[in-house]
Amino acid sequence: MYEKKDNKPSEAASRLTALSELGEFGLIDRLTRNVVIHHPETLKGIGDDAAVIATGDKVLLFSTDLLVEGIHFDLTYMPFRHLGYKAAVVNISDIAAMNGIPRQMTVSLAVSSRFSAEALDELYAGILMACNKYKVDLVGGDTSSNVKGLTISVSIIGDAQKEEVVYRSGAGAGDLLCVTGDLGSAYIGLLILEREKSVFRADPNMQPELTGFDYQIGRQLRPEARTDIRNLLIGLGVKPTSMIDISDGLASEILHICKQSAVGCKLFEGKIPIDPYTTELAKEYKIIPSVAALSGGEDYELLFTVKQEDYEKIRDVGGISIIGHMTAASEGKYMITPDGKNVPLSAQGWDGMRGK
Amino acid sequence: MYEKKDNKPSEAASRLTALSELGEFGLIDRLTRNVVIHHPETLKGIGDDAAVIATGDKVLLFSTDLLVEGIHFDLTYMPFRHLGYKAAVVNISDIAAMNGIPRQMTVSLAVSSRFSAEALDELYAGILMACNKYKVDLVGGDTSSNVKGLTISVSIIGDAQKEEVVYRSGAGAGDLLCVTGDLGSAYIGLLILEREKSVFRADPNMQPELTGFDYQIGRQLRPEARTDIRNLLIGLGVKPTSMIDISDGLASEILHICKQSAVGCKLFEGKIPIDPYTTELAKEYKIIPSVAALSGGEDYELLFTVKQEDYEKIRDVGGISIIGHMTAASEGKYMITPDGKNVPLSAQGWDGMRGK
Repeated sequence: MYEKKDNKPSEAASRLTALSELGEFGLIDRLTRNVVIHHPETLKGIGDDAAVIATGDKVLLFSTDLLVEGIHFDLTYMPFRHLGYKAAVVNISDIAAMNGIPRQMTVSLAVSSRFSAEALDELYAGILMACNKYKVDLVGGDTSSNVKGLTISVSIIGDAQKEEVVYRSGAGAGDLLCVTGDLGSAYIGLLILEREKSVFRADPNMQPELTGFDYQIGRQLRPEARTDIRNLLIGLGVKPTSMIDISDGLASEILHICKQSAVGCKLFEGKIPIDPYTTELAKEYKIIPSVAALSGGEDYELLFTVKQEDYEKIRDVGGISIIGHMTAASEGKYMITPDGKNVPLSAQGWDGMRGK
Repeated sequence: MYEKKDNKPSEAASRLTALSELGEFGLIDRLTRNVVIHHPETLKGIGDDAAVIATGDKVLLFSTDLLVEGIHFDLTYMPFRHLGYKAAVVNISDIAAMNGIPRQMTVSLAVSSRFSAEALDELYAGILMACNKYKVDLVGGDTSSNVKGLTISVSIIGDAQKEEVVYRSGAGAGDLLCVTGDLGSAYIGLLILEREKSVFRADPNMQPELTGFDYQIGRQLRPEARTDIRNLLIGLGVKPTSMIDISDGLASEILHICKQSAVGCKLFEGKIPIDPYTTELAKEYKIIPSVAALSGGEDYELLFTVKQEDYEKIRDVGGISIIGHMTAASEGKYMITPDGKNVPLSAQGWDGMRGK
């Protein structure tokens, strides 16, 4: 304890922490460290794809996502209708990742005066297209002016039987690691769109060359949520021990499961499902195809673990790949390359992906 | 049907509609005109303070609000802690306006790199202060970079017994129009803060003169949600026939009830509860005090209607004012001035408030 003679804060007190020092997950941990839960109905708060709330005989799933122009989407190549569709799908995917059924959604927009009502009509047409496809009721929202650009906030409610809910935290050592569909194409689609954007900027008379890349571009601009997996697994008689959707990239999502389930993992690089043409395109962009899957993100497939005893049930199911297994936490988190090397698994960002 | 020889869109097709032509409510009506409800559990979708969803023996209330820097708040005079508190309270108030109990909340932030982690710590301290006071569980959210400024999106869930829920649409002719607390002070608080901001801009060495205006500034910076009214009314044995919270201003909220209940109204100007010092300050700012109440907004008091037979029960209750009654829709929507004039009630914006 000492007295200071002037009113200037000390150097230590005045040193503020830049958000970039923390990263998204560090920031969330820091901001939510003092959260107190008041209601016993709140079965799961922060830390999974959705919160879980007991409501009589069922549980409610509650999640939210924010999409910011210039951060999450680029209107130069993202048509409004696709943007609306994707904003809805990203949230629906969070409910699918809890093994729930999406039910109701709210959509809030902050929109600068540079946008026309017709542009927002298109955005809503996309949102409603997704709502109709996935049988989700749009029940509310908020619209506001924005100083600059477009921000979209979507919140969603789903439900499930309490015993159906799958958390990130249920994986055990020995469980099989599975993934739906294929990975990495959404990221390659983004690279194609960015390449054509820079070509267009250099010469606005150039027509974009997008034909032939329908799958990759479609995965980026108009992803789907795997709400079908819930019924597929019920049909197989398999309940995953943990589950998460792939928004940030396979590596990051595996690490979430490892952390929250307190287990390690062995991921087999050669088992990661990647579309053959995406593999070819990745090489054109000088990217190792598996790295597009590991770090690209936005595929919105589901990553889940099942008990070893379910191996027979899941082994030959089309559209599901077994890509590894969980281990004791003490064994670490590794990817095994096709030539047998053990590489530590890390959630590297996109910066680390090029030129490899 | 005709063929066009060039690729240019026709003049009619190329004329886009500016958002300012529609206004907030016109835009919402336009964007949501094609919404389809798929689930019978969705008892009420767009159009009230919250959506209402059946869940077993209770109903769920679901609402969301977006706060944009430079539109809804000004960080020059809004401390982060107050901003967080207010962002939470605004949403809690939506649940109170449905006669429900607030339960769980998600908070999403889009934040530019100009903000420090310490600023967001303060913001969350305010959010958690409100969550602790109103017993709301913070269960999730999303954080993202922003190109510019700070955007806060809050979504909230509450619950109630199905028969307890009060909609905007239940008012009948003859019902008494009631309001909690007093109105207009939040707007006067805003004027004081804006005045001191311009004084500070003209001469940064000037100290702001905010002492003596605690009530008005407190109402603007740190409003409370009237979650206490639910129990007060239960104690009185009164169930409102309609209810809404006062976010946009008394006139606008009365007109919402009139529209959705298909009734008219007679509002008695002299009955509008206004703090005496706010009345005095309004005159200093050359504003008719009742206009601050009618159009100022942000008081977050509750406006509700009760049946005439409940008059005796509610007449002498402190903190509730009877300010008029509903009429047949054909009788119109009027305010009766103290000297007996009938003035058509209109939801005039803040622009119409000065210099009267």
